[in-house]
Amino acid sequence: MTRAAIVGYGNIGRYTLEALQAAPDFEIAGIVRRDPSDRADIPADIPVVASIRDLKDVEVAILATPTRSVEKYAREILAMGINTVDSFDIHGQIPQLRETLDKAAKAHGSVAVISAGWDPGSDSVVRTLLQAIAPEGVTYTNFGPGRSMGHTVAVKAIEGVRDALSMTIPVGTGIHRRMVYIELEDGYELDPVAAAIKADPYFSSDETHVIAVPSVAELNDVGHGVNLVRKGVSGKTHNQLFEFDMKINNPALTGQVLVCCARAAMRQRPGCYTMIEIPVIDLLAGDRDAHIAHLV
Amino acid sequence: MTRAAIVGYGNIGRYTLEALQAAPDFEIAGIVRRDPSDRADIPADIPVVASIRDLKDVEVAILATPTRSVEKYAREILAMGINTVDSFDIHGQIPQLRETLDKAAKAHGSVAVISAGWDPGSDSVVRTLLQAIAPEGVTYTNFGPGRSMGHTVAVKAIEGVRDALSMTIPVGTGIHRRMVYIELEDGYELDPVAAAIKADPYFSSDETHVIAVPSVAELNDVGHGVNLVRKGVSGKTHNQLFEFDMKINNPALTGQVLVCCARAAMRQRPGCYTMIEIPVIDLLAGDRDAHIAHLV
Repeated sequence: MTRAAIVGYGNIGRYTLEALQAAPDFEIAGIVRRDPSDRADIPADIPVVASIRDLKDVEVAILATPTRSVEKYAREILAMGINTVDSFDIHGQIPQLRETLDKAAKAHGSVAVISAGWDPGSDSVVRTLLQAIAPEGVTYTNFGPGRSMGHTVAVKAIEGVRDALSMTIPVGTGIHRRMVYIELEDGYELDPVAAAIKADPYFSSDETHVIAVPSVAELNDVGHGVNLVRKGVSGKTHNQLFEFDMKINNPALTGQVLVCCARAAMRQRPGCYTMIEIPVIDLLAGDRDAHIAHLV
Repeated sequence: MTRAAIVGYGNIGRYTLEALQAAPDFEIAGIVRRDPSDRADIPADIPVVASIRDLKDVEVAILATPTRSVEKYAREILAMGINTVDSFDIHGQIPQLRETLDKAAKAHGSVAVISAGWDPGSDSVVRTLLQAIAPEGVTYTNFGPGRSMGHTVAVKAIEGVRDALSMTIPVGTGIHRRMVYIELEDGYELDPVAAAIKADPYFSSDETHVIAVPSVAELNDVGHGVNLVRKGVSGKTHNQLFEFDMKINNPALTGQVLVCCARAAMRQRPGCYTMIEIPVIDLLAGDRDAHIAHLV
Protein backbone atom coordinates (compact mmCIF):
# COMPACT_ATOMS: atom_id res chain seq x y z
CA MET A 1 0.00 0.00 0.00
CA THR A 2 1.20 3.48 -0.89
CA ARG A 3 0.39 6.33 1.52
CA ALA A 4 -0.96 9.31 -0.40
CA ALA A 5 -1.91 12.82 0.69
CA ILE A 6 -4.25 15.14 -1.17
CA VAL A 7 -3.16 18.78 -1.18
CA GLY A 8 -6.12 21.07 -1.86
CA TYR A 9 -9.72 20.03 -1.48
CA GLY A 10 -11.76 21.69 -4.19
CA ASN A 11 -13.53 19.91 -7.02
CA ILE A 12 -10.48 17.94 -8.18
CA GLY A 13 -9.49 17.10 -4.58
CA ARG A 14 -12.91 15.56 -3.93
CA TYR A 15 -12.75 13.35 -7.01
CA THR A 16 -9.15 12.43 -6.21
CA LEU A 17 -10.32 11.22 -2.81
CA GLU A 18 -12.91 9.00 -4.51
CA ALA A 19 -10.29 7.58 -6.88
CA LEU A 20 -7.95 6.84 -3.97
CA GLN A 21 -10.80 5.16 -2.06
CA ALA A 22 -11.58 3.02 -5.12
CA ALA A 23 -7.92 2.06 -5.70
CA PRO A 24 -6.78 -1.28 -4.19
CA ASP A 25 -3.21 -0.15 -3.49
CA PHE A 26 -3.49 3.19 -1.67
CA GLU A 27 -3.90 4.32 1.93
CA ILE A 28 -5.08 7.88 2.45
CA ALA A 29 -2.56 9.61 4.71
CA GLY A 30 -4.74 12.70 4.87
CA ILE A 31 -5.89 15.90 3.25
CA VAL A 32 -4.07 19.23 3.40
CA ARG A 33 -6.25 22.33 3.12
CA ARG A 34 -6.09 25.95 4.13
CA ASP A 35 -8.83 25.62 6.74
CA PRO A 36 -8.48 22.15 8.33
CA SER A 37 -11.52 22.74 10.52
CA ASP A 38 -13.68 22.60 7.37
CA ARG A 39 -14.22 18.83 7.14
CA ALA A 40 -17.32 19.12 4.92
CA ASP A 41 -18.01 15.67 3.44
CA ILE A 42 -14.63 14.15 4.43
CA PRO A 43 -14.96 10.79 6.27
CA ALA A 44 -14.07 11.06 9.97
CA ASP A 45 -11.13 8.64 9.77
CA ILE A 46 -9.20 10.83 7.31
CA PRO A 47 -6.90 13.42 8.93
CA VAL A 48 -7.36 16.97 7.65
CA VAL A 49 -4.43 19.27 8.37
CA ALA A 50 -3.04 22.67 7.38
CA SER A 51 0.46 21.40 6.51
CA ILE A 52 1.68 18.18 4.96
CA ARG A 53 4.27 18.06 7.77
CA ASP A 54 1.42 17.17 10.13
CA LEU A 55 0.69 13.93 8.23
CA LYS A 56 2.47 10.63 8.90
CA ASP A 57 4.63 8.71 6.40
CA VAL A 58 3.38 10.36 3.22
CA GLU A 59 4.97 8.75 0.17
CA VAL A 60 3.22 10.72 -2.55
CA ALA A 61 1.32 14.02 -2.52
CA ILE A 62 -1.39 14.63 -5.08
CA LEU A 63 -1.58 18.34 -5.77
CA ALA A 64 -5.19 19.34 -6.36
CA THR A 65 -4.31 23.02 -6.02
CA PRO A 66 -4.82 25.79 -8.57
CA THR A 67 -2.37 25.32 -11.45
CA ARG A 68 -0.42 28.46 -10.58
CA SER A 69 0.40 27.14 -7.08
CA VAL A 70 1.71 23.81 -8.35
CA GLU A 71 5.37 24.78 -8.60
CA LYS A 72 5.58 26.23 -5.08
CA TYR A 73 3.91 23.23 -3.42
CA ALA A 74 5.78 20.69 -5.52
CA ARG A 75 9.20 22.19 -4.71
CA GLU A 76 8.46 22.22 -0.98
CA ILE A 77 7.17 18.66 -0.95
CA LEU A 78 9.82 17.17 -3.25
CA ALA A 79 12.44 18.68 -0.91
CA MET A 80 10.92 16.56 1.89
CA GLY A 81 11.70 13.44 -0.18
CA ILE A 82 7.98 12.97 -0.97
CA ASN A 83 6.87 12.30 -4.56
CA THR A 84 4.38 14.70 -6.14
CA VAL A 85 1.78 14.52 -8.90
CA ASP A 86 -0.08 17.46 -10.38
CA SER A 87 -2.34 18.32 -13.29
CA PHE A 88 -0.56 21.55 -14.26
CA ASP A 89 -2.38 22.60 -17.42
CA ILE A 90 -0.72 25.68 -18.93
CA HIS A 91 0.61 23.96 -22.06
CA GLY A 92 3.27 26.56 -22.89
CA GLN A 93 4.88 26.43 -19.44
CA ILE A 94 5.21 22.65 -19.08
CA PRO A 95 8.88 22.36 -20.26
CA GLN A 96 9.95 25.03 -17.76
CA LEU A 97 8.08 23.43 -14.85
CA ARG A 98 9.57 20.06 -15.81
CA GLU A 99 13.09 21.46 -15.74
CA THR A 100 12.63 23.15 -12.36
CA LEU A 101 11.01 20.15 -10.69
CA ASP A 102 13.49 17.73 -12.28
CA LYS A 103 16.31 19.51 -10.43
CA ALA A 104 14.35 19.63 -7.17
CA ALA A 105 13.39 15.95 -7.40
CA LYS A 106 16.88 14.71 -8.27
CA ALA A 107 18.39 16.76 -5.45
CA HIS A 108 16.14 15.02 -2.93
CA GLY A 109 15.72 11.53 -4.40
CA SER A 110 12.04 12.10 -5.15
CA VAL A 111 9.81 11.86 -8.24
CA ALA A 112 7.45 14.44 -9.76
CA VAL A 113 4.86 13.57 -12.39
CA ILE A 114 3.49 16.75 -13.93
CA SER A 115 0.53 17.65 -16.15
CA ALA A 116 -1.24 14.43 -15.23
CA GLY A 117 -4.82 15.08 -16.27
CA TRP A 118 -6.56 14.35 -19.53
CA ASP A 119 -5.23 17.25 -21.60
CA PRO A 120 -2.40 17.61 -20.92
CA GLY A 121 -2.24 14.00 -19.75
CA SER A 122 -3.88 10.94 -21.24
CA ASP A 123 -4.58 12.81 -24.51
CA SER A 124 -0.84 13.57 -24.68
CA VAL A 125 -0.10 9.84 -24.62
CA VAL A 126 -2.50 9.25 -27.52
CA ARG A 127 -1.11 12.24 -29.47
CA THR A 128 2.45 10.97 -29.03
CA LEU A 129 1.55 7.41 -30.02
CA LEU A 130 -0.19 8.63 -33.19
CA GLN A 131 2.72 10.94 -34.03
CA ALA A 132 5.02 7.89 -33.78
CA ILE A 133 2.97 5.48 -35.88
CA ALA A 134 2.16 8.05 -38.58
CA PRO A 135 5.12 10.44 -38.33
CA GLU A 136 3.93 12.85 -41.03
CA GLY A 137 0.48 14.37 -40.94
CA VAL A 138 -1.70 16.67 -38.91
CA THR A 139 -3.35 16.02 -35.54
CA TYR A 140 -6.39 18.01 -34.51
CA THR A 141 -7.48 18.04 -30.86
CA ASN A 142 -11.13 19.06 -30.66
CA PHE A 143 -12.39 19.83 -27.16
CA GLY A 144 -15.91 19.72 -25.81
CA PRO A 145 -18.73 20.21 -25.55
CA GLY A 146 -17.74 21.19 -22.05
CA ARG A 147 -16.94 24.15 -19.86
CA SER A 148 -13.61 25.93 -20.14
CA MET A 149 -12.31 27.02 -16.74
CA GLY A 150 -9.90 29.60 -18.18
CA HIS A 151 -12.52 31.21 -20.42
CA THR A 152 -15.12 31.19 -17.63
CA VAL A 153 -12.74 33.03 -15.31
CA ALA A 154 -12.01 35.57 -18.05
CA VAL A 155 -15.73 36.29 -18.51
CA LYS A 156 -16.34 36.66 -14.77
CA ALA A 157 -13.70 39.41 -14.67
CA ILE A 158 -15.68 41.58 -17.09
CA GLU A 159 -17.72 44.48 -15.71
CA GLY A 160 -21.45 43.79 -15.50
CA VAL A 161 -21.09 40.00 -15.23
CA ARG A 162 -22.41 38.48 -12.00
CA ASP A 163 -21.83 34.84 -12.92
CA ALA A 164 -20.73 33.11 -16.11
CA LEU A 165 -20.05 29.83 -17.86
CA SER A 166 -18.05 29.50 -21.07
CA MET A 167 -18.77 26.32 -22.99
CA THR A 168 -16.29 25.08 -25.58
CA ILE A 169 -17.99 23.63 -28.66
CA PRO A 170 -15.84 21.74 -31.17
CA VAL A 171 -16.43 22.67 -34.79
CA GLY A 172 -13.66 20.44 -36.16
CA THR A 173 -9.99 20.80 -37.26
CA GLY A 174 -9.08 22.21 -33.84
CA ILE A 175 -11.43 25.18 -34.17
CA HIS A 176 -13.85 25.95 -31.33
CA ARG A 177 -16.99 27.97 -30.89
CA ARG A 178 -17.49 29.68 -27.49
CA MET A 179 -20.98 29.66 -26.01
CA VAL A 180 -20.91 32.12 -23.13
CA TYR A 181 -23.80 32.11 -20.64
CA ILE A 182 -23.93 35.08 -18.29
CA GLU A 183 -25.99 36.47 -15.46
CA LEU A 184 -25.95 40.28 -15.76
CA GLU A 185 -25.44 42.56 -12.78
CA ASP A 186 -28.38 44.86 -12.15
CA GLY A 187 -28.34 47.94 -14.38
CA TYR A 188 -26.25 46.38 -17.17
CA GLU A 189 -27.40 45.71 -20.73
CA LEU A 190 -26.47 42.58 -22.68
CA ASP A 191 -25.09 44.25 -25.83
CA PRO A 192 -22.19 46.29 -24.37
CA VAL A 193 -21.24 43.46 -21.97
CA ALA A 194 -21.31 40.96 -24.86
CA ALA A 195 -19.13 43.31 -26.92
CA ALA A 196 -16.61 43.54 -24.07
CA ILE A 197 -16.49 39.72 -23.81
CA LYS A 198 -15.99 39.30 -27.55
CA ALA A 199 -13.13 41.85 -27.48
CA ASP A 200 -11.28 39.96 -24.71
CA PRO A 201 -8.13 38.17 -25.97
CA TYR A 202 -9.59 34.86 -24.73
CA PHE A 203 -12.45 35.22 -27.23
CA SER A 204 -11.40 37.67 -29.93
CA SER A 205 -10.17 35.02 -32.38
CA ASP A 206 -13.04 32.52 -31.90
CA GLU A 207 -16.69 32.56 -32.94
CA THR A 208 -18.34 33.66 -29.70
CA HIS A 209 -22.00 33.82 -28.73
CA VAL A 210 -23.05 35.55 -25.51
CA ILE A 211 -26.40 34.59 -24.00
CA ALA A 212 -28.01 36.14 -20.92
CA VAL A 213 -29.63 33.61 -18.59
CA PRO A 214 -31.48 34.03 -15.28
CA SER A 215 -29.29 31.46 -13.50
CA VAL A 216 -25.86 30.18 -14.51
CA ALA A 217 -25.93 27.69 -11.62
CA GLU A 218 -28.75 25.83 -13.38
CA LEU A 219 -26.44 25.10 -16.32
CA ASN A 220 -23.99 23.22 -14.12
CA ASP A 221 -22.66 20.04 -15.77
CA VAL A 222 -19.11 18.72 -15.47
CA GLY A 223 -19.30 16.59 -18.61
CA HIS A 224 -16.62 17.18 -21.19
CA GLY A 225 -15.22 15.55 -24.29
CA VAL A 226 -12.37 15.23 -26.72
CA ASN A 227 -12.20 14.20 -30.33
CA LEU A 228 -8.57 13.78 -31.38
CA VAL A 229 -8.02 13.13 -35.08
CA ARG A 230 -4.89 12.31 -37.02
CA LYS A 231 -4.49 11.64 -40.74
CA GLY A 232 -0.94 10.81 -41.66
CA VAL A 233 1.73 8.74 -43.33
CA SER A 234 3.16 5.43 -42.07
CA GLY A 235 6.44 4.80 -43.89
CA LYS A 236 5.52 5.96 -47.40
CA THR A 237 1.82 5.07 -47.20
CA HIS A 238 -0.58 8.00 -46.96
CA ASN A 239 -4.14 8.32 -45.69
CA GLN A 240 -3.71 6.42 -42.42
CA LEU A 241 -6.74 7.50 -40.36
CA PHE A 242 -6.90 7.62 -36.55
CA GLU A 243 -9.48 8.99 -34.15
CA PHE A 244 -9.72 9.06 -30.34
CA ASP A 245 -12.97 10.10 -28.80
CA MET A 246 -14.17 10.47 -25.24
CA LYS A 247 -17.20 11.76 -23.36
CA ILE A 248 -16.36 12.01 -19.69
CA ASN A 249 -16.99 13.58 -16.29
CA ASN A 250 -14.09 16.02 -16.30
CA PRO A 251 -12.99 16.19 -12.61
CA ALA A 252 -13.61 12.44 -12.16
CA LEU A 253 -11.23 11.62 -15.00
CA THR A 254 -8.65 14.12 -13.74
CA GLY A 255 -8.82 12.62 -10.22
CA GLN A 256 -8.38 9.11 -11.63
CA VAL A 257 -5.41 10.11 -13.81
CA LEU A 258 -3.77 11.81 -10.81
CA VAL A 259 -4.11 8.58 -8.81
CA CYS A 260 -2.71 6.46 -11.68
CA CYS A 261 0.26 8.81 -11.91
CA ALA A 262 0.78 8.78 -8.12
CA ARG A 263 1.17 5.01 -8.51
CA ALA A 264 3.51 5.45 -11.47
CA ALA A 265 5.59 7.99 -9.52
CA MET A 266 6.50 5.24 -7.05
CA ARG A 267 7.97 3.24 -9.96
CA GLN A 268 10.24 5.86 -11.55
CA ARG A 269 13.79 6.87 -10.75
CA PRO A 270 14.24 10.33 -9.18
CA GLY A 271 13.37 13.17 -11.54
CA CYS A 272 10.42 14.88 -13.19
CA TYR A 273 8.23 13.19 -15.80
CA THR A 274 5.33 14.01 -18.07
CA MET A 275 2.96 11.14 -18.87
CA ILE A 276 4.52 10.51 -22.29
CA GLU A 277 7.78 9.64 -20.52
CA ILE A 278 6.19 6.88 -18.40
CA PRO A 279 5.34 3.35 -19.61
CA VAL A 280 1.53 3.00 -19.56
CA ILE A 281 1.80 -0.27 -17.63
CA ASP A 282 3.14 1.73 -14.65
CA LEU A 283 -0.28 3.42 -14.38
CA LEU A 284 -1.97 0.14 -13.43
CA ALA A 285 -2.47 -1.50 -10.05
CA GLY A 286 -1.98 -5.23 -9.77
CA ASP A 287 0.19 -7.90 -11.31
CA ARG A 288 2.40 -6.77 -14.17
CA ASP A 289 2.61 -10.19 -15.83
CA ALA A 290 -1.17 -10.53 -15.75
CA HIS A 291 -1.54 -7.15 -17.45
CA ILE A 292 0.89 -8.17 -20.17
CA ALA A 293 -1.08 -11.39 -20.71
CA HIS A 294 -4.46 -9.63 -20.86
CA LEU A 295 -3.80 -6.23 -22.41
CA VAL A 296 -0.97 -6.64 -24.95
CA MET B 1 22.09 7.14 -36.94
CA THR B 2 21.13 3.62 -35.92
CA ARG B 3 22.12 0.77 -38.24
CA ALA B 4 19.16 -1.56 -38.77
CA ALA B 5 18.82 -4.86 -40.59
CA ILE B 6 15.56 -6.32 -41.90
CA VAL B 7 15.25 -10.08 -41.47
CA GLY B 8 12.71 -11.52 -43.90
CA TYR B 9 11.51 -9.74 -47.01
CA GLY B 10 7.85 -10.52 -47.51
CA ASN B 11 5.01 -8.02 -47.30
CA ILE B 12 5.98 -6.67 -43.87
CA GLY B 13 9.67 -6.57 -44.80
CA ARG B 14 8.93 -4.37 -47.83
CA TYR B 15 6.90 -1.87 -45.80
CA THR B 16 9.55 -1.91 -43.04
CA LEU B 17 12.14 -0.93 -45.65
CA GLU B 18 9.94 2.03 -46.66
CA ALA B 19 9.54 3.11 -43.03
CA LEU B 20 13.31 2.90 -42.48
CA GLN B 21 13.92 4.92 -45.66
CA ALA B 22 11.44 7.56 -44.43
CA ALA B 23 12.96 7.74 -40.92
CA PRO B 24 15.55 10.49 -40.31
CA ASP B 25 17.62 8.49 -37.82
CA PHE B 26 18.26 5.09 -39.43
CA GLU B 27 20.82 3.63 -41.79
CA ILE B 28 19.88 0.40 -43.55
CA ALA B 29 22.63 -2.14 -42.83
CA GLY B 30 21.00 -4.67 -45.15
CA ILE B 31 18.32 -7.26 -45.71
CA VAL B 32 18.57 -10.91 -44.67
CA ARG B 33 16.56 -13.35 -46.80
CA ARG B 34 16.67 -17.03 -47.66
CA ASP B 35 17.63 -16.40 -51.30
CA PRO B 36 19.91 -13.34 -51.36
CA SER B 37 20.17 -13.49 -55.14
CA ASP B 38 16.50 -12.44 -55.30
CA ARG B 39 16.91 -8.65 -55.14
CA ALA B 40 13.45 -7.95 -56.62
CA ASP B 41 12.67 -4.28 -55.99
CA ILE B 42 15.50 -3.70 -53.47
CA PRO B 43 17.65 -0.63 -54.25
CA ALA B 44 21.15 -1.56 -55.48
CA ASP B 45 22.97 0.11 -52.57
CA ILE B 46 21.33 -2.13 -49.93
CA PRO B 47 23.21 -5.37 -49.18
CA VAL B 48 21.08 -8.52 -49.40
CA VAL B 49 22.59 -11.51 -47.58
CA ALA B 50 21.65 -14.97 -46.32
CA SER B 51 22.89 -14.44 -42.76
CA ILE B 52 22.93 -11.40 -40.51
CA ARG B 53 26.59 -12.26 -39.77
CA ASP B 54 27.39 -11.04 -43.26
CA LEU B 55 26.17 -7.51 -42.49
CA LYS B 56 28.35 -4.82 -40.91
CA ASP B 57 27.75 -3.15 -37.53
CA VAL B 58 24.07 -4.04 -37.13
CA GLU B 59 22.63 -2.44 -33.98
CA VAL B 60 19.03 -3.59 -34.30
CA ALA B 61 17.40 -6.34 -36.36
CA ILE B 62 13.76 -5.97 -37.39
CA LEU B 63 12.25 -9.44 -37.68
CA ALA B 64 9.77 -9.47 -40.55
CA THR B 65 9.64 -13.28 -40.47
CA PRO B 66 6.60 -15.49 -39.94
CA THR B 67 5.46 -15.22 -36.31
CA ARG B 68 6.42 -18.82 -35.54
CA SER B 69 10.07 -18.19 -36.49
CA VAL B 70 10.41 -15.11 -34.29
CA GLU B 71 11.75 -16.85 -31.19
CA LYS B 72 14.47 -18.77 -33.05
CA TYR B 73 15.75 -15.69 -34.92
CA ALA B 74 15.48 -13.41 -31.90
CA ARG B 75 17.48 -15.75 -29.66
CA GLU B 76 20.26 -16.09 -32.23
CA ILE B 77 20.48 -12.37 -32.86
CA LEU B 78 20.16 -11.24 -29.22
CA ALA B 79 23.06 -13.61 -28.44
CA MET B 80 25.17 -11.59 -30.89
CA GLY B 81 24.52 -8.49 -28.75
CA ILE B 82 22.17 -7.07 -31.40
CA ASN B 83 18.77 -5.70 -30.40
CA THR B 84 15.65 -7.23 -31.98
CA VAL B 85 12.11 -6.10 -32.72
CA ASP B 86 9.28 -8.32 -33.91
CA SER B 87 5.53 -8.24 -34.40
CA PHE B 88 4.84 -11.64 -32.82
CA ASP B 89 1.04 -11.81 -32.84
CA ILE B 90 -0.13 -14.96 -31.07
CA HIS B 91 -1.73 -13.20 -28.08
CA GLY B 92 -1.74 -16.22 -25.74
CA GLN B 93 1.96 -16.91 -26.18
CA ILE B 94 3.31 -13.41 -25.58
CA PRO B 95 4.16 -13.81 -21.85
CA GLN B 96 6.17 -16.96 -22.59
CA LEU B 97 8.09 -15.35 -25.48
CA ARG B 98 8.79 -12.34 -23.28
CA GLU B 99 10.23 -14.52 -20.52
CA THR B 100 12.47 -16.46 -22.91
CA LEU B 101 13.77 -13.41 -24.74
CA ASP B 102 14.21 -11.47 -21.50
CA LYS B 103 16.73 -14.06 -20.31
CA ALA B 104 18.48 -14.16 -23.69
CA ALA B 105 18.66 -10.36 -23.90
CA LYS B 106 19.92 -9.85 -20.35
CA ALA B 107 22.55 -12.55 -20.81
CA HIS B 108 24.00 -10.68 -23.77
CA GLY B 109 23.36 -7.03 -22.91
CA SER B 110 20.81 -6.63 -25.69
CA VAL B 111 17.17 -5.48 -25.93
CA ALA B 112 14.16 -7.22 -27.48
CA VAL B 113 10.88 -5.43 -28.19
CA ILE B 114 8.17 -7.98 -28.95
CA SER B 115 4.67 -7.88 -30.40
CA ALA B 116 5.33 -4.50 -31.95
CA GLY B 117 2.57 -4.16 -34.51
CA TRP B 118 -0.87 -2.63 -34.17
CA ASP B 119 -2.65 -5.46 -32.34
CA PRO B 120 -0.75 -6.55 -30.37
CA GLY B 121 1.12 -3.27 -30.37
CA SER B 122 -0.23 0.26 -30.59
CA ASP B 123 -3.75 -0.95 -29.71
CA SER B 124 -2.26 -2.53 -26.56
CA VAL B 125 -0.99 0.89 -25.49
CA VAL B 126 -4.46 2.40 -25.93
CA ARG B 127 -6.14 -0.55 -24.12
CA THR B 128 -3.74 -0.20 -21.18
CA LEU B 129 -4.19 3.57 -20.96
CA LEU B 130 -7.99 3.21 -20.93
CA GLN B 131 -7.82 0.42 -18.34
CA ALA B 132 -5.80 2.79 -16.14
CA ILE B 133 -8.00 5.87 -16.46
CA ALA B 134 -11.26 3.93 -16.07
CA PRO B 135 -10.16 0.90 -14.01
CA GLU B 136 -13.58 -0.79 -13.93
CA GLY B 137 -15.52 -1.47 -17.08
CA VAL B 138 -15.39 -3.45 -20.27
CA THR B 139 -13.19 -2.90 -23.34
CA TYR B 140 -14.25 -4.25 -26.71
CA THR B 141 -11.72 -4.50 -29.52
CA ASN B 142 -13.54 -4.69 -32.84
CA PHE B 143 -11.38 -5.59 -35.83
CA GLY B 144 -11.93 -4.86 -39.47
CA PRO B 145 -13.19 -4.73 -42.06
CA GLY B 146 -9.96 -6.35 -43.16
CA ARG B 147 -8.43 -9.69 -44.02
CA SER B 148 -7.42 -12.10 -41.29
CA MET B 149 -4.18 -13.88 -42.10
CA GLY B 150 -4.79 -16.73 -39.64
CA HIS B 151 -8.31 -17.41 -40.89
CA THR B 152 -7.24 -17.18 -44.52
CA VAL B 153 -4.52 -19.79 -43.97
CA ALA B 154 -7.05 -22.06 -42.23
CA VAL B 155 -9.42 -21.87 -45.21
CA LYS B 156 -6.64 -22.56 -47.72
CA ALA B 157 -5.88 -25.82 -45.89
CA ILE B 158 -9.39 -27.16 -46.56
CA GLU B 159 -9.84 -29.67 -49.39
CA GLY B 160 -11.35 -28.22 -52.52
CA VAL B 161 -10.09 -24.67 -51.92
CA ARG B 162 -7.66 -23.32 -54.53
CA ASP B 163 -7.35 -19.83 -53.11
CA ALA B 164 -9.11 -17.99 -50.30
CA LEU B 165 -9.53 -14.76 -48.40
CA SER B 166 -11.19 -14.46 -45.01
CA MET B 167 -12.44 -10.97 -44.20
CA THR B 168 -13.13 -9.98 -40.60
CA ILE B 169 -16.23 -7.80 -40.25
CA PRO B 170 -16.87 -6.13 -36.88
CA VAL B 171 -20.44 -6.43 -35.63
CA GLY B 172 -19.73 -4.72 -32.28
CA THR B 173 -18.97 -5.77 -28.67
CA GLY B 174 -15.96 -7.77 -29.84
CA ILE B 175 -18.06 -10.08 -32.05
CA HIS B 176 -17.00 -10.64 -35.66
CA ARG B 177 -18.59 -11.95 -38.80
CA ARG B 178 -16.37 -13.92 -41.20
CA MET B 179 -16.81 -13.31 -44.93
CA VAL B 180 -14.90 -16.07 -46.68
CA TYR B 181 -14.20 -15.74 -50.40
CA ILE B 182 -12.96 -18.90 -52.11
CA GLU B 183 -11.87 -20.16 -55.49
CA LEU B 184 -12.96 -23.79 -55.79
CA GLU B 185 -10.69 -26.49 -57.18
CA ASP B 186 -12.11 -28.17 -60.29
CA GLY B 187 -14.66 -30.84 -59.47
CA TYR B 188 -15.66 -29.43 -56.06
CA GLU B 189 -19.08 -28.08 -55.10
CA LEU B 190 -19.57 -25.01 -52.92
CA ASP B 191 -21.92 -26.51 -50.33
CA PRO B 192 -19.74 -29.30 -48.88
CA VAL B 193 -16.62 -27.11 -48.96
CA ALA B 194 -18.53 -24.30 -47.20
CA ALA B 195 -19.73 -26.79 -44.58
CA ALA B 196 -16.15 -27.94 -43.97
CA ILE B 197 -15.01 -24.32 -43.53
CA LYS B 198 -17.84 -23.55 -41.09
CA ALA B 199 -16.96 -26.65 -39.04
CA ASP B 200 -13.31 -25.60 -38.70
CA PRO B 201 -12.43 -24.39 -35.15
CA TYR B 202 -11.35 -21.04 -36.62
CA PHE B 203 -14.93 -20.44 -37.78
CA SER B 204 -17.26 -22.68 -35.79
CA SER B 205 -18.13 -20.08 -33.15
CA ASP B 206 -18.55 -17.10 -35.52
CA GLU B 207 -21.21 -16.18 -38.04
CA THR B 208 -19.53 -17.30 -41.27
CA HIS B 209 -20.54 -16.76 -44.89
CA VAL B 210 -18.71 -18.60 -47.67
CA ILE B 211 -18.86 -17.13 -51.16
CA ALA B 212 -17.40 -18.67 -54.33
CA VAL B 213 -15.65 -16.16 -56.59
CA PRO B 214 -13.85 -16.59 -59.92
CA SER B 215 -10.69 -14.81 -58.66
CA VAL B 216 -9.61 -14.21 -55.08
CA ALA B 217 -6.64 -12.17 -56.32
CA GLU B 218 -9.07 -9.51 -57.55
CA LEU B 219 -10.26 -8.93 -53.98
CA ASN B 220 -6.80 -7.93 -52.83
CA ASP B 221 -6.82 -4.95 -50.44
CA VAL B 222 -4.52 -4.52 -47.44
CA GLY B 223 -6.78 -2.02 -45.70
CA HIS B 224 -7.80 -2.87 -42.15
CA GLY B 225 -9.35 -1.20 -39.16
CA VAL B 226 -9.96 -1.22 -35.44
CA ASN B 227 -12.69 0.20 -33.28
CA LEU B 228 -11.72 -0.08 -29.63
CA VAL B 229 -14.41 0.91 -27.15
CA ARG B 230 -14.35 1.22 -23.37
CA LYS B 231 -17.14 2.27 -21.03
CA GLY B 232 -16.00 2.38 -17.45
CA VAL B 233 -15.64 3.99 -14.06
CA SER B 234 -13.13 6.68 -13.07
CA GLY B 235 -12.92 6.77 -9.27
CA LYS B 236 -16.59 6.31 -8.37
CA THR B 237 -18.01 7.99 -11.49
CA HIS B 238 -19.66 5.69 -14.02
CA ASN B 239 -20.38 6.04 -17.72
CA GLN B 240 -16.99 7.34 -18.82
CA LEU B 241 -16.96 6.72 -22.58
CA PHE B 242 -13.85 6.15 -24.72
CA GLU B 243 -13.38 5.11 -28.33
CA PHE B 244 -10.31 4.60 -30.51
CA ASP B 245 -10.82 4.13 -34.20
CA MET B 246 -8.49 3.60 -37.10
CA LYS B 247 -8.66 2.79 -40.80
CA ILE B 248 -5.21 1.90 -42.06
CA ASN B 249 -3.02 0.08 -44.56
CA ASN B 250 -2.17 -2.94 -42.42
CA PRO B 251 1.41 -3.82 -43.44
CA ALA B 252 2.38 -0.13 -43.71
CA LEU B 253 1.31 0.48 -40.11
CA THR B 254 3.05 -2.68 -38.93
CA GLY B 255 6.28 -1.65 -40.70
CA GLN B 256 6.11 1.81 -39.14
CA VAL B 257 5.48 0.45 -35.63
CA LEU B 258 8.42 -1.95 -36.04
CA VAL B 259 10.69 0.97 -36.94
CA CYS B 260 9.43 3.07 -33.99
CA CYS B 261 10.14 0.16 -31.67
CA ALA B 262 13.60 -0.43 -33.21
CA ARG B 263 14.33 3.15 -32.19
CA ALA B 264 12.87 2.59 -28.72
CA ALA B 265 14.93 -0.60 -28.31
CA MET B 266 18.10 1.51 -28.47
CA ARG B 267 16.81 3.49 -25.45
CA GLN B 268 15.95 0.64 -23.05
CA ARG B 269 18.14 -1.26 -20.62
CA PRO B 270 18.88 -4.91 -21.52
CA GLY B 271 15.80 -7.12 -21.38
CA CYS B 272 12.60 -7.87 -23.24
CA TYR B 273 9.72 -5.41 -23.49
CA THR B 274 6.21 -5.22 -24.87
CA MET B 275 5.04 -1.81 -26.07
CA ILE B 276 3.06 -1.11 -22.88
CA GLU B 277 6.35 -1.25 -20.96
CA ILE B 278 7.99 1.49 -23.04
CA PRO B 279 7.35 5.25 -22.66
CA VAL B 280 5.64 6.46 -25.86
CA ILE B 281 8.16 9.30 -26.21
CA ASP B 282 10.85 6.67 -26.88
CA LEU B 283 9.04 5.80 -30.14
CA LEU B 284 9.77 9.22 -31.63
CA ALA B 285 12.77 10.48 -33.61
CA GLY B 286 14.09 13.92 -32.85
CA ASP B 287 14.46 16.19 -29.87
CA ARG B 288 12.84 14.98 -26.66
CA ASP B 289 12.34 18.44 -25.17
CA ALA B 290 10.66 19.64 -28.36
CA HIS B 291 8.26 16.67 -28.22
CA ILE B 292 7.38 17.47 -24.62
CA ALA B 293 6.72 21.09 -25.58
CA HIS B 294 4.54 20.18 -28.58
CA LEU B 295 2.77 16.96 -27.67
CA VAL B 296 2.08 17.06 -23.91
